[in-house]
Amino acid sequence: MSHNSFGHLFRVTTWGESHGPAIGCVVDGCPPLIPLSEADIQAELDRRKPGQSRFTTQRREADAVKILSGVFSHPETGEQVTTGTPISLLIENTDQRSKDYSDIAERYRPGHADITYDAKYGIRDYRGGGRSSARETAMRVAAGAVARKVVEGVTIRGALVQIGPHKIDRDRWDWDETAKNPFFCPDAKTAELWADYLDGIRKAGSSVGAVVEVVADGVPAGLGAPIYGKLDQDLASALMSINAVKGVEIGAGFEAAALTGEENADEIRIGKDGAPDYLSNKAGGILGGISSGQPVVARFAVKPTSSILTPRKSITRSGEEVDVMTKGRHDPCVGIRAVPVGEAMAAIVLADHFLRHRGQVGA
Amino acid sequence: MSHNSFGHLFRVTTWGESHGPAIGCVVDGCPPLIPLSEADIQAELDRRKPGQSRFTTQRREADAVKILSGVFSHPETGEQVTTGTPISLLIENTDQRSKDYSDIAERYRPGHADITYDAKYGIRDYRGGGRSSARETAMRVAAGAVARKVVEGVTIRGALVQIGPHKIDRDRWDWDETAKNPFFCPDAKTAELWADYLDGIRKAGSSVGAVVEVVADGVPAGLGAPIYGKLDQDLASALMSINAVKGVEIGAGFEAAALTGEENADEIRIGKDGAPDYLSNKAGGILGGISSGQPVVARFAVKPTSSILTPRKSITRSGEEVDVMTKGRHDPCVGIRAVPVGEAMAAIVLADHFLRHRGQVGA
Amino acid sequence: MSHNSFGHLFRVTTWGESHGPAIGCVVDGCPPLIPLSEADIQAELDRRKPGQSRFTTQRREADAVKILSGVFSHPETGEQVTTGTPISLLIENTDQRSKDYSDIAERYRPGHADITYDAKYGIRDYRGGGRSSARETAMRVAAGAVARKVVEGVTIRGALVQIGPHKIDRDRWDWDETAKNPFFCPDAKTAELWADYLDGIRKAGSSVGAVVEVVADGVPAGLGAPIYGKLDQDLASALMSINAVKGVEIGAGFEAAALTGEENADEIRIGKDGAPDYLSNKAGGILGGISSGQPVVARFAVKPTSSILTPRKSITRSGEEVDVMTKGRHDPCVGIRAVPVGEAMAAIVLADHFLRHRGQVGA
Amino acid sequence: MSHNSFGHLFRVTTWGESHGPAIGCVVDGCPPLIPLSEADIQAELDRRKPGQSRFTTQRREADAVKILSGVFSHPETGEQVTTGTPISLLIENTDQRSKDYSDIAERYRPGHADITYDAKYGIRDYRGGGRSSARETAMRVAAGAVARKVVEGVTIRGALVQIGPHKIDRDRWDWDETAKNPFFCPDAKTAELWADYLDGIRKAGSSVGAVVEVVADGVPAGLGAPIYGKLDQDLASALMSINAVKGVEIGAGFEAAALTGEENADEIRIGKDGAPDYLSNKAGGILGGISSGQPVVARFAVKPTSSILTPRKSITRSGEEVDVMTKGRHDPCVGIRAVPVGEAMAAIVLADHFLRHRGQVGA
Repeated sequence: MSHNSFGHLFRVTTWGESHGPAIGCVVDGCPPLIPLSEADIQAELDRRKPGQSRFTTQRREADAVKILSGVFSHPETGEQVTTGTPISLLIENTDQRSKDYSDIAERYRPGHADITYDAKYGIRDYRGGGRSSARETAMRVAAGAVARKVVEGVTIRGALVQIGPHKIDRDRWDWDETAKNPFFCPDAKTAELWADYLDGIRKAGSSVGAVVEVVADGVPAGLGAPIYGKLDQDLASALMSINAVKGVEIGAGFEAAALTGEENADEIRIGKDGAPDYLSNKAGGILGGISSGQPVVARFAVKPTSSILTPRKSITRSGEEVDVMTKGRHDPCVGIRAVPVGEAMAAIVLADHFLRHRGQVGA
Repeated sequence: MSHNSFGHLFRVTTWGESHGPAIGCVVDGCPPLIPLSEADIQAELDRRKPGQSRFTTQRREADAVKILSGVFSHPETGEQVTTGTPISLLIENTDQRSKDYSDIAERYRPGHADITYDAKYGIRDYRGGGRSSARETAMRVAAGAVARKVVEGVTIRGALVQIGPHKIDRDRWDWDETAKNPFFCPDAKTAELWADYLDGIRKAGSSVGAVVEVVADGVPAGLGAPIYGKLDQDLASALMSINAVKGVEIGAGFEAAALTGEENADEIRIGKDGAPDYLSNKAGGILGGISSGQPVVARFAVKPTSSILTPRKSITRSGEEVDVMTKGRHDPCVGIRAVPVGEAMAAIVLADHFLRHRGQVGA
Repeated sequence: MSHNSFGHLFRVTTWGESHGPAIGCVVDGCPPLIPLSEADIQAELDRRKPGQSRFTTQRREADAVKILSGVFSHPETGEQVTTGTPISLLIENTDQRSKDYSDIAERYRPGHADITYDAKYGIRDYRGGGRSSARETAMRVAAGAVARKVVEGVTIRGALVQIGPHKIDRDRWDWDETAKNPFFCPDAKTAELWADYLDGIRKAGSSVGAVVEVVADGVPAGLGAPIYGKLDQDLASALMSINAVKGVEIGAGFEAAALTGEENADEIRIGKDGAPDYLSNKAGGILGGISSGQPVVARFAVKPTSSILTPRKSITRSGEEVDVMTKGRHDPCVGIRAVPVGEAMAAIVLADHFLRHRGQVGA
Repeated sequence: MSHNSFGHLFRVTTWGESHGPAIGCVVDGCPPLIPLSEADIQAELDRRKPGQSRFTTQRREADAVKILSGVFSHPETGEQVTTGTPISLLIENTDQRSKDYSDIAERYRPGHADITYDAKYGIRDYRGGGRSSARETAMRVAAGAVARKVVEGVTIRGALVQIGPHKIDRDRWDWDETAKNPFFCPDAKTAELWADYLDGIRKAGSSVGAVVEVVADGVPAGLGAPIYGKLDQDLASALMSINAVKGVEIGAGFEAAALTGEENADEIRIGKDGAPDYLSNKAGGILGGISSGQPVVARFAVKPTSSILTPRKSITRSGEEVDVMTKGRHDPCVGIRAVPVGEAMAAIVLADHFLRHRGQVGA
């Protein structure tokens, strides 16, 4: 059952509300004897941390992760490694400004989960979005840092490829650029354009959507479990579970609908090493739900946050019509911080499928 | 674990190869006392059946379903109803032409699962695609027919909205039209255009992709289980698991990336019945992973089949470079038959979440 | 979710009612390239088949199993092997005497599931016990035959060690004897005693309980997943799920309650091969939920069937007090046929844990 | 997958090592709007706490539980209630005496999980037993306190019915007595006898086993999911997963093996309220895996702890033969503290099945 857990053999369970005492996760099923320190995880968390530029929310989250279980000193080397038992990770919520939440308690923000949580449960922790807050994604990144260790030969990188109507130029793609601008943008020129564009959005108190691309290089052929544990299926599930995501593509994605069979077929030759050498990658590295050995490529669309300074029509919990606008800290493009989150979810899917494949087939 | 099963409380397990003696599925967790006959299921299967027009494969599948368990005569009415025990459904494979498969056994079709099944398992049943054949989707439709009964007040309909580069005109959308043309097209004019276009594709021995839209009306608010059992997440998983699907969207989908927060917010008023009345549906009926009461809208992209008459470069199982082309029966647009399959998967997701919600929250 | 499925990586789903058209199961997650024929499975089924002596029900079940999917000829050897896809097994129900079931439909047999199925579902297939019939255990044996192949180095054997008040003499234990008498009794002398005793029970139209012991030799150390996937826990679950079972023990079992720590500790020396050499096996081969390398020993108690010729007080579906007695075929000791069923369930647990261990830890 | 999780709809995941910074659990799937405070949980924990008499280990555990998520103030009453999101519970480990663990790191205690954890994972946190410590059961009790709230009409009570060879006299059974002696013994006279007997065991540095009985009154008819989610099966799984448990029985249990069908059948009459009135309860309240409405009765055997002051033969991690004896704090009968743990596990099973039943069947 998967209310708040994801994965099967590598299984992540997250818990916690935005303004509760802490958030955390339990990573179960991790192989033993893998070196793992808090610093390993912190490094990934720091990439996601808000408030690092004027383009993300100014909320300050220390996001200092603690490992509470599942690691121990290696009997020979003394290095801290995993033990095969559950790894419990915890981050204390330190930036819980005591403020007046009566407004948000009563008024449903259009496009927010406020109204549906209430419809489902009859109650919600409304402080800062509670369980539906993007704060939960910190634990995805933390768990993803562990997952990366499980599939060590695989390189999982993400990039922002579109903000609002502005797409990158793929001919200028340079992975190194993603670390040099506040957008994880692989195209330096477009990053400059985005800076101007987003400044306008920010000053207008508006917000805008984005598209993130995640690429995993070095995925061995054979991962994925047809028919209902397909690798692309689980990536779709993982990425669609991220807050504000409204679409997921693999390889050519929706463009494939407009292609002919001739255009879409990834032709194959024998490479120098004797392995299959694909002449294109429309499939995004997955055929029949199973990895082919090509890079695995996924893309997802993030909607603009509905926390904007322009009033929108809405209703209250008690059924009155009101206008709602967001005050205070505000995130012009939540898609930016979704990049490390998308990487993390891809890492979790790949780690899970690596273990599943090894379980059924060995090797 | 979900190798060949989908869903949790309403759980579907499929089995079978394209050219084995039969295919089948087990539907577990169905509530008791629901009227269910073979005719109910057959009606859905007949909508998916190939060979109904010149635009789908000419393979003839009788597709006569048998219910082998899980139903019994109602103690009072005598009507055949579910008993709460597993429902086993079976379709015998009758159109297994005895032909020479040595070619397909050895040569990998580009874009096919041939090569990845071999990479994973070291073996595959290559006859007619074996387990990776679209034939498996017949059991999805059969299971979906049961699922529809579980969520009886919900209307789940699908339509083809794009073939190749040609999209429908949404202003001409008429659900009734979907039953009147061989494309499940809701726009009569576009259906005519498609007929011409696909005739060309077919005669050229080519194939083309498509986009399917599925809409569920009457879904009650509250279905979906945050954070990792979100309704949109499970729809993405369900639809991406269908053969040849490369992308999934909810509501505005990838278009949401280009929108501002003002444009994307679905404003709310109080309706005549006192319930929330949304002024738009960019969210596709799902907020924070939970249904809002609006129609649930999903879309998915189907790639063109790689079984085409034009030779493509490929390799053999034993590692030689060859040219591969498909002979015999051929499907110019597999997206057409994906329409009832998409509906079925949506029905299964909704039935599962209906039971899950009732389990946790009651009523 | 586990309504009608058992196991995780090696997962068995059974379906079917005693007097429906067929019963069957789907075995999912089996590794590929394992030789598997119908004869392999039939051999195990024949050990369980009723009507082989006067001590089991005279119902004749042909129990001819068919493999409908998941096997194919090996690309090199041509031998039929598993492919890694779901294995569907089916047995047609041939001995469905058309008889009058109005009695059984209305009157609840004391100790039977009749009354609880009705309480739960409001309906039941009452013919021959429907889903609650011991007939379902045939599919456990069939699936167990596949599981044995997965853990090929492990020898899993069962024996009846008690019928009614009469226990075997463990000093006379000889596995070869279990194939020589109709009771799977490892002690020839006690088998003779049982024959006389059970004749009396049978002629009196009565029934009696039994205890079965299952031993798995050759289980490698390391199988089992603490804390909630313990090997003994899953054995307890597997064996308690068999019809009519009321108790399960591992190793010393309930006797351990009366022992001191000194008596219960299995002391260890270094064996000739350098591996641990245990001086006793009170633990039944499992420490902390993980196999130690010693033989895994489990025992389970089977209650007497309540289908007896002596009238017992009961009630009807419509709430009237009646006396109920069973007519026709009758099974004086259902525990006998539980022996191959217990073996099969142990095999399924071990196969599942073998794959789970390989998934997490490798090799 | 269930490495460190138990249950399906009501799902408990525990984590933590005996001497790590903390232990904890996540309770997922709990219905919303149930009043829940730390005091509710603490009350149950205090019943399990060690060091309350001379008959349990003198280790002092403060065991102060914190609720970190999943509760919020009720929108109308302001009372703290569950929200339907995961409930994270945490207990800090305060009694981590800094001592020398080199001995325990190297020498395997006979009967302990030391050797099998090492065999499985190649590593273990040996301090105080690490993950295999009975300390983990504190989180079972905590989660069980939540589960009790889910099945509020059900009364779940446990009692110790045997210590070493000494059984209680069932004719003297008085539930009130269980709170009056340090053994949870329902028979005052036997409690006195046990006190003397255990003093002898304790002074001899020995230990002894025990049998615990758990009874759930008020369980509605219909809970349990045949065939592989039987209520008795899940109870067996739950109880066998407790440290040191070697056997589980339902109702008459192993005694049923010695009974005839006449003796074992629970006859039925119509009660004053029109409901079935059973004349005995050999079945332990479960027929065909489904609750009958009678009290659910389970029993489990706890082995003596192997931490004793008498040296036993064993080996070291590096393969040398040694004698091992336990120093320091020592628990003469771990079965005593297993009573609240058994109650908790029964509560978790019942809560899970209550939700599962409501999901499939409603009401």
